[in-house]
Amino acid sequence: MQIGMVGLGKMGGNMAERLRRGGHEVVGYDRDPAVSDVSSLRELVDRLQAPRAVWVMVPAGEPTQLTVNELGELLDEGDLVIDGGNSHYVDDQRHAEELKAHGIGFVDCGVSGGVWGLQNGYALMCGGDKASVERLMPVFETLKPEGEDGFVHAGDVGAGHFAKMVHNGIEYGMMQAYAEGWELLEASDIVKDVRGSFSSWRTGTVIRSWLLDLLVRALDDDEHLDELKGYAQDSGEGRWTVQAAVDHAVPLPVITAALYARFASRQDDSPAMKMVAALRNQFGGHAVTSAAGSTEKGADSPGADVTPPREAQ
Amino acid sequence: MQIGMVGLGKMGGNMAERLRRGGHEVVGYDRDPAVSDVSSLRELVDRLQAPRAVWVMVPAGEPTQLTVNELGELLDEGDLVIDGGNSHYVDDQRHAEELKAHGIGFVDCGVSGGVWGLQNGYALMCGGDKASVERLMPVFETLKPEGEDGFVHAGDVGAGHFAKMVHNGIEYGMMQAYAEGWELLEASDIVKDVRGSFSSWRTGTVIRSWLLDLLVRALDDDEHLDELKGYAQDSGEGRWTVQAAVDHAVPLPVITAALYARFASRQDDSPAMKMVAALRNQFGGHAVTSAAGSTEKGADSPGADVTPPREAQ
Amino acid sequence: MQIGMVGLGKMGGNMAERLRRGGHEVVGYDRDPAVSDVSSLRELVDRLQAPRAVWVMVPAGEPTQLTVNELGELLDEGDLVIDGGNSHYVDDQRHAEELKAHGIGFVDCGVSGGVWGLQNGYALMCGGDKASVERLMPVFETLKPEGEDGFVHAGDVGAGHFAKMVHNGIEYGMMQAYAEGWELLEASDIVKDVRGSFSSWRTGTVIRSWLLDLLVRALDDDEHLDELKGYAQDSGEGRWTVQAAVDHAVPLPVITAALYARFASRQDDSPAMKMVAALRNQFGGHAVTSAAGSTEKGADSPGADVTPPREAQ
Amino acid sequence: MQIGMVGLGKMGGNMAERLRRGGHEVVGYDRDPAVSDVSSLRELVDRLQAPRAVWVMVPAGEPTQLTVNELGELLDEGDLVIDGGNSHYVDDQRHAEELKAHGIGFVDCGVSGGVWGLQNGYALMCGGDKASVERLMPVFETLKPEGEDGFVHAGDVGAGHFAKMVHNGIEYGMMQAYAEGWELLEASDIVKDVRGSFSSWRTGTVIRSWLLDLLVRALDDDEHLDELKGYAQDSGEGRWTVQAAVDHAVPLPVITAALYARFASRQDDSPAMKMVAALRNQFGGHAVTSAAGSTEKGADSPGADVTPPREAQ
Repeated sequence: MQIGMVGLGKMGGNMAERLRRGGHEVVGYDRDPAVSDVSSLRELVDRLQAPRAVWVMVPAGEPTQLTVNELGELLDEGDLVIDGGNSHYVDDQRHAEELKAHGIGFVDCGVSGGVWGLQNGYALMCGGDKASVERLMPVFETLKPEGEDGFVHAGDVGAGHFAKMVHNGIEYGMMQAYAEGWELLEASDIVKDVRGSFSSWRTGTVIRSWLLDLLVRALDDDEHLDELKGYAQDSGEGRWTVQAAVDHAVPLPVITAALYARFASRQDDSPAMKMVAALRNQFGGHAVTSAAGSTEKGADSPGADVTPPREAQ
Repeated sequence: MQIGMVGLGKMGGNMAERLRRGGHEVVGYDRDPAVSDVSSLRELVDRLQAPRAVWVMVPAGEPTQLTVNELGELLDEGDLVIDGGNSHYVDDQRHAEELKAHGIGFVDCGVSGGVWGLQNGYALMCGGDKASVERLMPVFETLKPEGEDGFVHAGDVGAGHFAKMVHNGIEYGMMQAYAEGWELLEASDIVKDVRGSFSSWRTGTVIRSWLLDLLVRALDDDEHLDELKGYAQDSGEGRWTVQAAVDHAVPLPVITAALYARFASRQDDSPAMKMVAALRNQFGGHAVTSAAGSTEKGADSPGADVTPPREAQ
Repeated sequence: MQIGMVGLGKMGGNMAERLRRGGHEVVGYDRDPAVSDVSSLRELVDRLQAPRAVWVMVPAGEPTQLTVNELGELLDEGDLVIDGGNSHYVDDQRHAEELKAHGIGFVDCGVSGGVWGLQNGYALMCGGDKASVERLMPVFETLKPEGEDGFVHAGDVGAGHFAKMVHNGIEYGMMQAYAEGWELLEASDIVKDVRGSFSSWRTGTVIRSWLLDLLVRALDDDEHLDELKGYAQDSGEGRWTVQAAVDHAVPLPVITAALYARFASRQDDSPAMKMVAALRNQFGGHAVTSAAGSTEKGADSPGADVTPPREAQ
Repeated sequence: MQIGMVGLGKMGGNMAERLRRGGHEVVGYDRDPAVSDVSSLRELVDRLQAPRAVWVMVPAGEPTQLTVNELGELLDEGDLVIDGGNSHYVDDQRHAEELKAHGIGFVDCGVSGGVWGLQNGYALMCGGDKASVERLMPVFETLKPEGEDGFVHAGDVGAGHFAKMVHNGIEYGMMQAYAEGWELLEASDIVKDVRGSFSSWRTGTVIRSWLLDLLVRALDDDEHLDELKGYAQDSGEGRWTVQAAVDHAVPLPVITAALYARFASRQDDSPAMKMVAALRNQFGGHAVTSAAGSTEKGADSPGADVTPPREAQ
């Protein structure tokens, strides 16, 4: 079928290519003229025959909002917008309302697959009404990996990005679980072959996974990760997962702990732990490491922690 | 090679069978005469030629301790004991010392693979000195799955069970991560196909894994898990992982949260939350649900939470 | 000074009374005519001399929004609205903008003190510009407890409710800390006098506090809290604290754990733990407690947890 | 009454002094001859009349064990040893057994109060049989603060130290709750007076406590804690609390999170977060901060997090 693709970066560009290889006609627009088939969104719309389908593949937030706004003006009743970026599911619901006012349909689609997607296909989670999703099935069929999995019509508008968000939340938890296990093995005096232990788990164990394969590959490159700093960004989706949990009164101790570990990893020094140090200092003159770096031994602890009178013989 | 196998239950029995299929001579002992090749540990020892290797596959704790004690008396200098059960790595170190006093070697071996192991092989993580491990390699080669993974000589005595313990700790964290994601999807109003969402992740995503496959299979049987109670046992190894973390001053927020979720799942009512309810009751007459089941609305909250004066028009 | 008070429930009514005892002239409005001095917000506004100050003490959310809207219409340039309810700090900022469009000032004020406030005074945390706060100081001076503490001009608009929100988040963490300690003491075989232990901590220890006093009082009434269910509501402010933390990338493991414990306390059964049980069931036929209540022992665990072959003698 | 005091450091020395001021006869022994009344434990035992009571106030672990061993040899049947240090409750039970073999009684006593104890008294939590505790009541009465609180006979041997351990666990949780709240306030753009906010809570709020007073005092000295590093030691008792929780299958999310925050505070770099960074790097060429300090922007994320194609206009 014919489809417009807005945003031809690493994701959008590869998806357009996979669609073309699958026999679809793709008209692509990107603000970089070097990769764009048309010079403007207006021209893209003009090049498509109604009823049109336009896949938006630009960063979440303002870029997506601006694109949706502009398409709302340019498209006609009966056309369809697909947001394949990483939008917040709450924004999907607003975008759908805004477009509906113009008679334009909306489908949200969480996409997973990355650099391997062009070759292997993209896992797709979409949300929207049944008719709109049906209409897009030829496109979804081409984009998704071979086999029975890799695609779901998860529910109403927003459900695709909600599912993708939860996918990422789970990913946070799994990564942290492996990472904690790795730290504990590294801390052990008796375990000498940590890389080999993880490698041994790739076959025949309960925790074998694609992430485990990546982990072993990372250790093959740098056995003790000496080249890296313990500093990890978080994408919006981890935060949204926790916020959705709070909104739905669902306890997510593991996923939240994984998110907080990333927050903490980006702090040069923990303000909270400064306060804990300050309190310990107050109530007993504990040894406190000052910002200057030296460790001063204060008066002995009083009642809080250890009471260290001199040792008897 | 020739090997003794003590404990012919589901694990030991299948491992003995896999070894025989691989051309090894196995003399098996079990206290159940129906499955035992010999009538006693003494007879087992007598049937093996020195230097002997005896694989112990009985429950951790007292059963393993008693077996090690008895083998310490029966075996000769130069013989070798392998503990393939789920012993605590701290116990391994003691067992090794005890056997060493008799000139007997010791290797610990964490085993993963379960009911699929007979067919597909067992992932093996072992600990001990190099010479002992080398001597057992023919046995390990037969037990492990095909391919380059599935076996590690992780380090000194205890390292095998330490690695297996950490494997299980990671497993706790991963299971909880999936479980939390599932709960959040189930709680969403807009997501209609939760099973399908998980299924879609089996291909092309970052979180694909064997556990995810199991999860989808569980939802195929019972889409909303209506047949199950939210009640999960924990094995010793999850607890040991947390205790090892505390001993090594390694923070494990995710793995510990997963363990605690299991503890909480087994409580009919949370004592801690009774106390929270009691405090709320004290400081403001919050609505408290009494054990009898009714919800009494007390006086309005004072300063702690919401101050709900009557609504203005 | 002269002040209008909107909302004469337990909090607003007592605050009006404390202000009157302090020599202020209070015109009160409540939708319940039995307690109201005037029959409408319009009449309240008419009874006050410009520049007016109107303290809004109604529930957060829609009631406060409606009151602010209406006051925006009724008040004149130079008047001042104080929101003393438990509004979200984000809403304060919007309210301030809306009123500013009418030339009306806005101050937010978090209030703590509850049923003891009339007698002992209310802790006040307020946000807004300096001139507006200065203008209200006579009122704040009367409402606050005696002594140097109990009042802060925390910062810009929203800062008062932000501070109150954080106060409540800390409260969640403290309550949970005591509650966990209580549960652990109750679980001990050797500790016989749990109530007495807590009581002993009221003097001379690091953890003495007003909450500890309440806790002991609760145990005096019901030593093992047999009369209560472990079921605790959460107010909006605990959730807002976690959301603010996520927005600010601040890790709050303790406060969040306390919030999640409340969420979990309200679940009859944990969906997440159903999934953990389902996975355990899948990978090894672990004993699973079915919803019907019986405990079925399945096949032995495979590779995940304990490998329980039959015991050797 | 007459009592021996072993260990005359800050705690033991002050306790001896408080006992003397209360009219008791104290014979003190310390390995530092400058503060010791006697030259050896033997001489201390000789100076006391049977049945003797000897209070041991030396560091937990080996020093206490050695003192108990030596007293076991020196004391007579009917004598009594009190361990007032911070021993693990598990050790108490062993010490009691060892002394019982000599006919010597044992009482464990957790002591809180620190540098203020001499003046204000020490909170005491003791464990042991009723007769032994009764015999020591004159001493406890003198040591404890005035008033009805500050002393508990918590239960059997070990119960005193168990209660003290839980006290410290609660303390960890409370300190962390305040610290997290402080960090969040400091992170806010709109809150300008963080110190004042905490100070305002000292009167009339739910979270007022002695720790809050200390916190305000710390901020008085150093408003943003610029002089401190976020580095906090943990005493053994926080760890023991978590281990006791794991042993008793009691979930302690808050107290454990507080302990883990201290562990993490002492890491220059988090190994676990190196692994998270490594995994992110593997699956998508995320920007990774290398140990060398530079931030390299890798390829765009694939499927895991944000898919950032170029922005559309």
